[in-house]
Amino acid sequence: MTQGSGFFISFEGADGSGKSTQARRLADSLRAAGHEVVLTREPGGSEGAEQIRALLLEGESERWSPETEILLFTAARRDHMERVIAPALKAGKLVICDRFADSTRVYQGLDRADLRVLVDQLHALMIGREPDLTLLIDMDPEQALARALARGGAEARFENRGSTMQKRIRAAFLALADEFPARVRRIDGNHPPEAVASEIRGLIEGALATGTPRT
Amino acid sequence: MTQGSGFFISFEGADGSGKSTQARRLADSLRAAGHEVVLTREPGGSEGAEQIRALLLEGESERWSPETEILLFTAARRDHMERVIAPALKAGKLVICDRFADSTRVYQGLDRADLRVLVDQLHALMIGREPDLTLLIDMDPEQALARALARGGAEARFENRGSTMQKRIRAAFLALADEFPARVRRIDGNHPPEAVASEIRGLIEGALATGTPRT
Ligand SMILES: Nc1ncnc2c1ncn2[C@@H]1O[C@H](COP(=O)(O)OP(=O)(O)O)[C@@H](O)[C@H]1O
Ligand SMILES: Nc1ncnc2c1ncn2[C@@H]1O[C@H](COP(=O)(O)OP(=O)(O)O)[C@@H](O)[C@H]1O
Ligand SMILES: [Mg+2]
Ligand SMILES: [Mg+2]
Repeated sequence: MTQGSGFFISFEGADGSGKSTQARRLADSLRAAGHEVVLTREPGGSEGAEQIRALLLEGESERWSPETEILLFTAARRDHMERVIAPALKAGKLVICDRFADSTRVYQGLDRADLRVLVDQLHALMIGREPDLTLLIDMDPEQALARALARGGAEARFENRGSTMQKRIRAAFLALADEFPARVRRIDGNHPPEAVASEIRGLIEGALATGTPRT
Repeated sequence: MTQGSGFFISFEGADGSGKSTQARRLADSLRAAGHEVVLTREPGGSEGAEQIRALLLEGESERWSPETEILLFTAARRDHMERVIAPALKAGKLVICDRFADSTRVYQGLDRADLRVLVDQLHALMIGREPDLTLLIDMDPEQALARALARGGAEARFENRGSTMQKRIRAAFLALADEFPARVRRIDGNHPPEAVASEIRGLIEGALATGTPRT
């Protein structure tokens, strides 16, 4: 995957933590500041990847084995990377992606360490690249769950697994932040949207000014 | 993938060489001899894999990059293996599969050696198992092409690439036979269907009697 001169930001965190809200706000404020921004999401984000996403979301929960599911996520990500993310970065744009590979590491790796290894092996083989900066929105799991349940929506198939699960997911994201300290920044999501947005804007302005952190 | 006591046979060869014809005939004659036979095919062969097959066959030829295509073939094969092939083998059945991983090695690896490596890496990671016996129907490429064109049908998207291509595909299958001498048997497909079927039946009876060749 050719790496261009753009900057690649991902949002991560539990369902209801405010990723989509903050990704939109950040895109708006960077556009207002004159940047060319591509706002995208996973699973999906390109025509082919959205069709693979539909295969993943439709049907029974036992429809795919965990291993097949990881292959389909990787196929979707490969398409999204080739068709949307890499070309935008090459053209010097800012890419903001609502969830990326860390979500696969956390959700698909949650119950079985061997599956986390598999996600990483497939990532190394087929994707290669990590975001330049990952914003992990971290917050009280009960609050995040309450927000997600109030909002409802289509992600329930993957994420609506109750309060104990939400705590384990938070812990897994925090462990990821420790594993990739150079690119992952923890954001406190317990504040109102404006406050979270302004913390993020400060962090991004710093990163864009210095060009760091980069992988 | 748990390996059972069954026996796993794949048919390979260029389009028009008579794989589907011979796979059906072999299934019929083994059933008539009292064997439990599962006759299946790739790409596809299980409910999920058939849906992935539809994604692969639909749309423009440039719809997926070669790498994404290989990931989707591997996802389909994983599902097919888990849901159909492995359970049948575990139950002691004979599995006859019309195309398997060798077709991916040949077609996806034809133009780029690095893609052949990728097919093998993904196979090692996600599939693991090879057929116990692979029947490679080898024949005059022009004749095979003429048969395929006369028949028509849905495989054209992958295979109908003209006479020069058909010769290269034949050569690639023969190279595979040299690479995996323990499991691949070359069958002369230039004879009438009954003659080809009887050569295959003789070979299979021998293999089932001695339990060899096995990988
Ligand atoms: N900082 C916040 N405080 C209160 N509610 C929020 C905040 N951020 C988002 N929300 C609301 O919580 C719900 C989940 O937010 P969303 O951005 O969709 O989260 P995610 O994309 O992480 O699942 C939405 O209804 C959203 O309007
Ligand atoms: N040995 C043979 N001699 C002549 N025609 C054949 C023979 N085997 C198959 N055919 C015919 O050739 C066409 C292609 O055979 P098919 O079994 O579909 O090949 P494949 O599955 O390898 O593409 C079909 O129309 C079939 O009836
Ligand atoms: Mg969201
Ligand atoms: Mg056929």
